[in-house]
Amino acid sequence: MIRHHIAATALAMATSFCFAQTSPPPIKEDFKPSVLNQPGQEYPQVNSQGYARFRIHAPAADSVRVSLGLGGRGGTKLTKDADGYWTGTTAGPLDEGFHYYHVFVDGGKFNDPGTLNFYGSVRWESGIEIPAHDQDFYALKDVPHGQVVQILFPSKSTGTSRRAFVYLPPDYHKDLNKRYPVLYLQHGWGEDETAWTNQGRANLIMDNLIAEGKIKPFIIVMTYGMTNEIRFGQLRQFDITPFQTVLVDELIPYIDANFRTLTDQPNRAMAGLSMGGMETRLITLNKPDVFSHYALLSGGIYSPEDIKDKSKVKLIFLSCGSKERPERIKTATEELQKAGFNAVSYISEGTAHEFQTWRRSLYQLAPLLFRD
Amino acid sequence: MIRHHIAATALAMATSFCFAQTSPPPIKEDFKPSVLNQPGQEYPQVNSQGYARFRIHAPAADSVRVSLGLGGRGGTKLTKDADGYWTGTTAGPLDEGFHYYHVFVDGGKFNDPGTLNFYGSVRWESGIEIPAHDQDFYALKDVPHGQVVQILFPSKSTGTSRRAFVYLPPDYHKDLNKRYPVLYLQHGWGEDETAWTNQGRANLIMDNLIAEGKIKPFIIVMTYGMTNEIRFGQLRQFDITPFQTVLVDELIPYIDANFRTLTDQPNRAMAGLSMGGMETRLITLNKPDVFSHYALLSGGIYSPEDIKDKSKVKLIFLSCGSKERPERIKTATEELQKAGFNAVSYISEGTAHEFQTWRRSLYQLAPLLFRD
Repeated sequence: MIRHHIAATALAMATSFCFAQTSPPPIKEDFKPSVLNQPGQEYPQVNSQGYARFRIHAPAADSVRVSLGLGGRGGTKLTKDADGYWTGTTAGPLDEGFHYYHVFVDGGKFNDPGTLNFYGSVRWESGIEIPAHDQDFYALKDVPHGQVVQILFPSKSTGTSRRAFVYLPPDYHKDLNKRYPVLYLQHGWGEDETAWTNQGRANLIMDNLIAEGKIKPFIIVMTYGMTNEIRFGQLRQFDITPFQTVLVDELIPYIDANFRTLTDQPNRAMAGLSMGGMETRLITLNKPDVFSHYALLSGGIYSPEDIKDKSKVKLIFLSCGSKERPERIKTATEELQKAGFNAVSYISEGTAHEFQTWRRSLYQLAPLLFRD
Repeated sequence: MIRHHIAATALAMATSFCFAQTSPPPIKEDFKPSVLNQPGQEYPQVNSQGYARFRIHAPAADSVRVSLGLGGRGGTKLTKDADGYWTGTTAGPLDEGFHYYHVFVDGGKFNDPGTLNFYGSVRWESGIEIPAHDQDFYALKDVPHGQVVQILFPSKSTGTSRRAFVYLPPDYHKDLNKRYPVLYLQHGWGEDETAWTNQGRANLIMDNLIAEGKIKPFIIVMTYGMTNEIRFGQLRQFDITPFQTVLVDELIPYIDANFRTLTDQPNRAMAGLSMGGMETRLITLNKPDVFSHYALLSGGIYSPEDIKDKSKVKLIFLSCGSKERPERIKTATEELQKAGFNAVSYISEGTAHEFQTWRRSLYQLAPLLFRD
């Protein structure tokens, strides 16, 4: 069940970007550079309605097209001016938040030189940000900032040093006797351990929540959720064992040995988006003595019968975008609640299988963690 | 003087990549994917002689060219096969180590979709790695690894939170009473605070030196060395004051408050490559009570008369590649030694104004720092 759901929603992500409305309004000429542009770059731009405008220099090209912008596979076709710049605007406004895209130049797939790259779809992709009405919660503000620590931890099972990023709350270096609960947070298919901070702004979400006193500070650990090359169509045959070994037998002991963590089960949570939700579900069910808080973000559901010992589960959090399958999340949450679980659902309004859904989900999830 | 030198060498870097020899040997067909390729990507490739081979998919393009590969501005022209792939090999072997490059597709400048990107020339550029005979010193090995910590520190003078990366040695979290000396390490023109770890592998160089017991562990701090958009030709008018304020009045106090540092002048060093050397020279001369160890990597020289109080300087380290102006470095070092300074020079054999020179320079510099 869960595997089919993941495959369906992620495939939808890869091929369609929904518009906020089908009959586009007149385009306002208040375009500004996207906040994700490389230093000094004027394009791509975004206007106040959520339209995106692209501009690519390729004077001798015959065809330039951007993958973003239409409800299907067509994207946005650019047209050339006398100076060799190709320009085009999406046919309608895009959903709020972060979108991956790329550029086809005479049939070759490249990134937009104007913008930063983000790892998704098993490649570094161009990214663009449509300002959201609620962007304040992940904005860079003048508040105390936590650290994002890159670690290389030894992994005997995979025969290498593996990378993870560790978010430490702003007060971590103040009181050297204080210990913290830990959330293990997984990316989606085709992404890696950079996604939750680069695309998701998880560190800024935490900094802001902590500054406002809305959460109990905790550590977040983000690592790469694959142990071999996985093609998208192979997810049905996915074997969780190798990654579970890396996470539970190698990473967790390393984190507990190198950071001031609370090491008991009630103080350890796991969450993941999309494929990371599938991994979270499998690992939490396999290892009920390791994690106490479970969260699946656009990543499927738990049924009451999945869980053997209800007393070991302190929270189940299920979320998705309103453009995904929200009824399924709501129904599953109600069933869990009826069975006596502390289950919470969250539906991100007006968003699909994209990072704005998951930024908002983390913002909703964080205050529910480690509350005792 | 120093400003002219920087401008000349960096301009050379931007327009030429020297070959190891002028009459190329027969090409060995033992090409392998570059270690900097994106996951699963077969191209670009490198052979055992240092030739690079590129392969780009652009079926409808009329012209594809790679910026790397000839002694001048031409680069490597690729030719198209029946499947729409453009392939080409450099006309000669490249220098050992890391090289930036990009791809021209029908006149537009793009990155190679096969490889990772690195910030240089004020843009994220493609990177390729030519295996070096001495690559062991910056290899990822099964040794204890330090952490690379991303911090966001408040900067009143620039009105924002600025980013820095902090390398912490592997034992930092073991003995919570131990304090460490600090090296402030600057990137070159067009690069940013990611360069020393991404291109330079500074963290792996340190991990390996510490594992072999060759250095006293210390902290490295890397931040962005510009406070406004600087075009290359404007370096002569460069004003060090804004960055000096960020570094000395904002970053150093933040580091000393948030990490277990030794905060006295004898335990603080500054080094920089190219433009970062120019900055190092100006700031160390302006602030003799802040830094005690100075290092310019392809970044100019000090003259004895530059320094007012010799007793405050514990080390001057000057380096460059043998394909730069090594005589100037050697002569300056001799003059400093004659004047009674503890001055050391290092010339990287067979390399130019590129990162292999600076990786080796850091490897030579680190054991000389904080020795007493």
